Amino acid sequence: MNLLLINPNISQSVSDLIEAEARRAAAPGTNIQVLTAPFGVAYIETRFESLIGAYATATLAAEHCGQHDAIVVAAFGDPGIAGLREALDIPVVGMTEAALMSACLLGQRFSIIAISRRIQAWYRECVQANGLIDRLASIRSLDGPLQDIGRVQDDHTERLKQLCLSAINDDGADVIIIAGAPLAGLARSIKDQIPVPVVDGVSSAVCHAQTLVSLAPVAHRQGSFAPPPIKPNKGLPEGITRLLSGATRGA
Amino acid sequence: MNLLLINPNISQSVSDLIEAEARRAAAPGTNIQVLTAPFGVAYIETRFESLIGAYATATLAAEHCGQHDAIVVAAFGDPGIAGLREALDIPVVGMTEAALMSACLLGQRFSIIAISRRIQAWYRECVQANGLIDRLASIRSLDGPLQDIGRVQDDHTERLKQLCLSAINDDGADVIIIAGAPLAGLARSIKDQIPVPVVDGVSSAVCHAQTLVSLAPVAHRQGSFAPPPIKPNKGLPEGITRLLSGATRGA
Amino acid sequence: MNLLLINPNISQSVSDLIEAEARRAAAPGTNIQVLTAPFGVAYIETRFESLIGAYATATLAAEHCGQHDAIVVAAFGDPGIAGLREALDIPVVGMTEAALMSACLLGQRFSIIAISRRIQAWYRECVQANGLIDRLASIRSLDGPLQDIGRVQDDHTERLKQLCLSAINDDGADVIIIAGAPLAGLARSIKDQIPVPVVDGVSSAVCHAQTLVSLAPVAHRQGSFAPPPIKPNKGLPEGITRLLSGATRGA
Amino acid sequence: MNLLLINPNISQSVSDLIEAEARRAAAPGTNIQVLTAPFGVAYIETRFESLIGAYATATLAAEHCGQHDAIVVAAFGDPGIAGLREALDIPVVGMTEAALMSACLLGQRFSIIAISRRIQAWYRECVQANGLIDRLASIRSLDGPLQDIGRVQDDHTERLKQLCLSAINDDGADVIIIAGAPLAGLARSIKDQIPVPVVDGVSSAVCHAQTLVSLAPVAHRQGSFAPPPIKPNKGLPEGITRLLSGATRGA
Amino acid sequence: MNLLLINPNISQSVSDLIEAEARRAAAPGTNIQVLTAPFGVAYIETRFESLIGAYATATLAAEHCGQHDAIVVAAFGDPGIAGLREALDIPVVGMTEAALMSACLLGQRFSIIAISRRIQAWYRECVQANGLIDRLASIRSLDGPLQDIGRVQDDHTERLKQLCLSAINDDGADVIIIAGAPLAGLARSIKDQIPVPVVDGVSSAVCHAQTLVSLAPVAHRQGSFAPPPIKPNKGLPEGITRLLSGATRGA
Amino acid sequence: MNLLLINPNISQSVSDLIEAEARRAAAPGTNIQVLTAPFGVAYIETRFESLIGAYATATLAAEHCGQHDAIVVAAFGDPGIAGLREALDIPVVGMTEAALMSACLLGQRFSIIAISRRIQAWYRECVQANGLIDRLASIRSLDGPLQDIGRVQDDHTERLKQLCLSAINDDGADVIIIAGAPLAGLARSIKDQIPVPVVDGVSSAVCHAQTLVSLAPVAHRQGSFAPPPIKPNKGLPEGITRLLSGATRGA
Repeated sequence: MNLLLINPNISQSVSDLIEAEARRAAAPGTNIQVLTAPFGVAYIETRFESLIGAYATATLAAEHCGQHDAIVVAAFGDPGIAGLREALDIPVVGMTEAALMSACLLGQRFSIIAISRRIQAWYRECVQANGLIDRLASIRSLDGPLQDIGRVQDDHTERLKQLCLSAINDDGADVIIIAGAPLAGLARSIKDQIPVPVVDGVSSAVCHAQTLVSLAPVAHRQGSFAPPPIKPNKGLPEGITRLLSGATRGA
Repeated sequence: MNLLLINPNISQSVSDLIEAEARRAAAPGTNIQVLTAPFGVAYIETRFESLIGAYATATLAAEHCGQHDAIVVAAFGDPGIAGLREALDIPVVGMTEAALMSACLLGQRFSIIAISRRIQAWYRECVQANGLIDRLASIRSLDGPLQDIGRVQDDHTERLKQLCLSAINDDGADVIIIAGAPLAGLARSIKDQIPVPVVDGVSSAVCHAQTLVSLAPVAHRQGSFAPPPIKPNKGLPEGITRLLSGATRGA
Repeated sequence: MNLLLINPNISQSVSDLIEAEARRAAAPGTNIQVLTAPFGVAYIETRFESLIGAYATATLAAEHCGQHDAIVVAAFGDPGIAGLREALDIPVVGMTEAALMSACLLGQRFSIIAISRRIQAWYRECVQANGLIDRLASIRSLDGPLQDIGRVQDDHTERLKQLCLSAINDDGADVIIIAGAPLAGLARSIKDQIPVPVVDGVSSAVCHAQTLVSLAPVAHRQGSFAPPPIKPNKGLPEGITRLLSGATRGA
Repeated sequence: MNLLLINPNISQSVSDLIEAEARRAAAPGTNIQVLTAPFGVAYIETRFESLIGAYATATLAAEHCGQHDAIVVAAFGDPGIAGLREALDIPVVGMTEAALMSACLLGQRFSIIAISRRIQAWYRECVQANGLIDRLASIRSLDGPLQDIGRVQDDHTERLKQLCLSAINDDGADVIIIAGAPLAGLARSIKDQIPVPVVDGVSSAVCHAQTLVSLAPVAHRQGSFAPPPIKPNKGLPEGITRLLSGATRGA
Repeated sequence: MNLLLINPNISQSVSDLIEAEARRAAAPGTNIQVLTAPFGVAYIETRFESLIGAYATATLAAEHCGQHDAIVVAAFGDPGIAGLREALDIPVVGMTEAALMSACLLGQRFSIIAISRRIQAWYRECVQANGLIDRLASIRSLDGPLQDIGRVQDDHTERLKQLCLSAINDDGADVIIIAGAPLAGLARSIKDQIPVPVVDGVSSAVCHAQTLVSLAPVAHRQGSFAPPPIKPNKGLPEGITRLLSGATRGA
Repeated sequence: MNLLLINPNISQSVSDLIEAEARRAAAPGTNIQVLTAPFGVAYIETRFESLIGAYATATLAAEHCGQHDAIVVAAFGDPGIAGLREALDIPVVGMTEAALMSACLLGQRFSIIAISRRIQAWYRECVQANGLIDRLASIRSLDGPLQDIGRVQDDHTERLKQLCLSAINDDGADVIIIAGAPLAGLARSIKDQIPVPVVDGVSSAVCHAQTLVSLAPVAHRQGSFAPPPIKPNKGLPEGITRLLSGATRGA
């Protein structure tokens, strides 16, 4: 099984974190490839940056989807996920939705631990778009400037663990989601120090993508996730143009 | 990996359907065992029957959990799932929640196809308890008496496919969930005739259970899913008494 | 009028508290009988314990319903209430729902005062299942270990009053619900010291049960609360078997 | 116990219906008095008419509250109920909220049967203001012009019964609420012909008012239902002026 | 364009504040008239006072609507707004809904800053009635007694600014709504000291009223905002009687 | 006042419709400029096309924002609106949110009339993201293929009017929103034939943009709509790069 993980931002160091955790989570026989956005920003913490990341992700996905069995959008907030699910005929899994689904299978209410205060409002909207706001106990985050996005989890391990404990003790969280690709793998390393299950987005996304490939659902041929109707377009990247032409759709 | 599937009702024919689909869905190396409730009713379609099934499931789970890596409650409506998740220190997955999570990863709104009209209200409450009512497009069901619970899917295949198509065309469903253990495996056999993804509860539960075992979350030691505090009890089945005594908890 | 109150747990001391408050609340001519669960735990504060209490309650209700005009399930969280409402053809009232309805008639938003921190998550789910989460101002609780479940209200009166005042002043509660059978009667004794109405579950349930008997609604003969369809069953207590056989249903 | 029922509109014929049903529902020892609004419209089916009815009700309530133990606002939509609850120090119960609470104790989802199509939107808002929209299965209504508001239930009995059955069969209602004072008493006369419980607003309000008087909650002295703070006013009816002056408040 | 602003309470000093801000906000060519309620209370902070203010507003609106292109109800809480919208065939805009709509166009979540603690519960209900509770970050308010309702904003400027900042920093507000006619104009004077947009109800209502007049929607002739059906009435103010007679409706 | 309307798709014929309606709605002194996306699709009816349109809109907005007082995103679904609101320091108004706000000021529940069945799911999500799903009565749409996107409203006038009437009569809509830029101006031409107010997105957006410019809110300097924190980026269009550098922000 071939899984493509797309990092919607330009940081190779974050792609490395994603790849390492994805490989730890993948089943034997699952091949992992990680691509980094060729344009965009260092990391996404706003709606505007997500808009850019969504387009970069779409560009990469359109170009590379032919060689893969499923695609993981490896940024919290799942930029572009709903659109990609329409355009592609393979499963597409976002880090956020994957983490939310894992959390729901482990308890009733969850908290999200994030890397910046600014990012909280957008994450909240993302949970709401997934229809799960009633199960959100809280979002807590680091509050200061980040020196190096590739080293956030190393620089702030203790503070991140404290945030987890506060979510459990003060907010009533039954499950903790560690959010954001820069924190990929942290859940695995701290889980024994946290008294409730801790969920990681990358490993959840890899496992759920494997599940979807294994269940082999048909592609949407009707409804709101069927491919966009063919219509005139112009000025788009070659891969997207090919997708929109219907050329890539199975018989 | 050892998975225990518990059929909360007394029908061996339904257990056979569950087991067959579970084996089709399981990864190599996953051992499947299916147990049938020693007491209860032929199949669960009401809240009262679910109350009985929950207790039967708890009795079996308490007795057998020591030999397994995860437990699947193999009846739609997930009788007893939240309670079991507290009492056991291994992952517990319900058929309904598993199907809901698969559906959420495949589209935005889903419909549920059920075996009896009576069962709809309870399923609706179940979706609501999972916090996902906003993503429910509709519930549709067979309407007549069922001759043989072990043969429902064979007797009513055409009608069930029509219900799927109505949910897509009239209710706006992007994904279809085939609900109820008596329909286990139907999704697999009809999926090519339905123009959106079709989700099966048993295979979803098996895959998600595998994922949870693979992610290896710690057991809840705090919060509302930690084991029930030890307190006086009496008159309970031996396995439940042992569970409540804390004797089965890991160090 | 004969009311049967069922204590779903095994503590006779709690049954005594329930009975005393029920008698204070009952109208002249209402006979009160209280039964204690023959199996189960000392008191219910988790979903797993509630699952057990629901089955114990069903067993007692099935055995004794013939001699009563209505049944009160006398534990907060209302274990088994929806199922019993299907199976019995007399009104069934839960302590939680009764308290919620009283509170709704006295103000817009209410807080719940509970006996243990652990119990909060389950109470919250219970309010949500009643569809009233938007009117819940907060849940506050005692936080320490309980020496004697039959003496909680005596041992912690001052702390419980403080929790009431915090709910009013800090959380915006217009009405206070004192939750849990071990606190039965406390509302009556402290109400003059609290500046908003204080609701007790037992007395509310007794009064609402009287109201339902007086209004004399027909039993559900259609819809999702009609008796479970008759189908094969085995291994159940005699009373439940008789209920499921339809033998107890009125002409 | 003295209960005052206020008909917020000017139709004596409707007051007569209210009084008859109230007397049928009242316990021995409960005295029933019904007052008819001295100004307003024939019956309320719009938000503007409700605004007028609220003021008429407030005028009557302020003038007469001193001689009663509780007040029932006897129009569906509960005009002025939240305001009155602040201003008076005795329980105030609305027909709609009373019917909703009865319905919630009898099943999970209810439908409302109403006298005019126009009235549906306002009733829906009323259910929403009570926080119970998730339990509303549907609102169905008569659709034609009403010849005589005092004879609606006689003129349209068959159609009203059909609406009940449609709500059960097509909308999934577990309980039926017959709405509107002009239909007071209908539930009692048709209940044996409807296969689920049928709730009447007037009798529910009388019973719940009796319950509240019996439970004897303290008046709100803090929070959002405490009496309005004393401040300058002018031009108001004498009773309202006296209420606002705090002169009627207990020590 | 002629706009009528109605102050539903009796304070001329508040009417002056309303008029000043309305004139600052009005486009060239918009004529502003402000009327003060002839009966009622000094300012509205409870549901009961709102009930009175709604009737006073209806009386004034009915009497004066003929000379205006739109009406603004100039009290937070929008007393009577839905009823007036039915009865009048010109646009009616409330201060609260106007502020909410402005806020929604400026960001996702807003906080409301109010003049008294008591008023918070009613404002919350008002936001809920507008269907926007999910976008409400918080309500914060002054907490002490108000010396002079016409000078609240002068007496408490610093505290009000602090409340704005707390809403932004602690509650996650993206937009601030300064609520209540006594604070009319404050947003304009402090906006440069607050780091997110600050919304004023009076100027929002004036601008939105201008927009509605400019868009020139037809009056409701069907649906739940069509004029109340003509039916018997008595004892009402002359203007209201004329409105209810249909005499004022356009051809 | 200079307003820039951006058509996120490539159809000049739709831009012409937008411009014509915008000019009809604009106040004297408001200058209207309409830009058409240089890349993208003919019209947007899916989430994937919206993702593309959002990026095209961002590119145009970044390049041209310096010469305008506010920006209108002139496609239903508001592609990119939340992101643009962060990045720009002038008001940004979307067609959908503008229409929703107008509708909310005209009645309680609204229906949306759309150009294609496919588009309904996305519109529903858009209403939900605005927090207004409880006020949505229904979405109805044309169902067949569209010959010429620039002539939809001419080709289908009668059918569109019928959809409006069905929404009023069958779904309980109090207000109708005509959705989609290809229908710009239709509301104005059919409004006299529809018995409730009919709202147009373009004219609403122009009027609300004028209001926001007139109210002159400060730009977000804190909170989740402040400009994205400055961080490394690469490969972006020049205008976006400049925006992200903070160079365009006022002192």
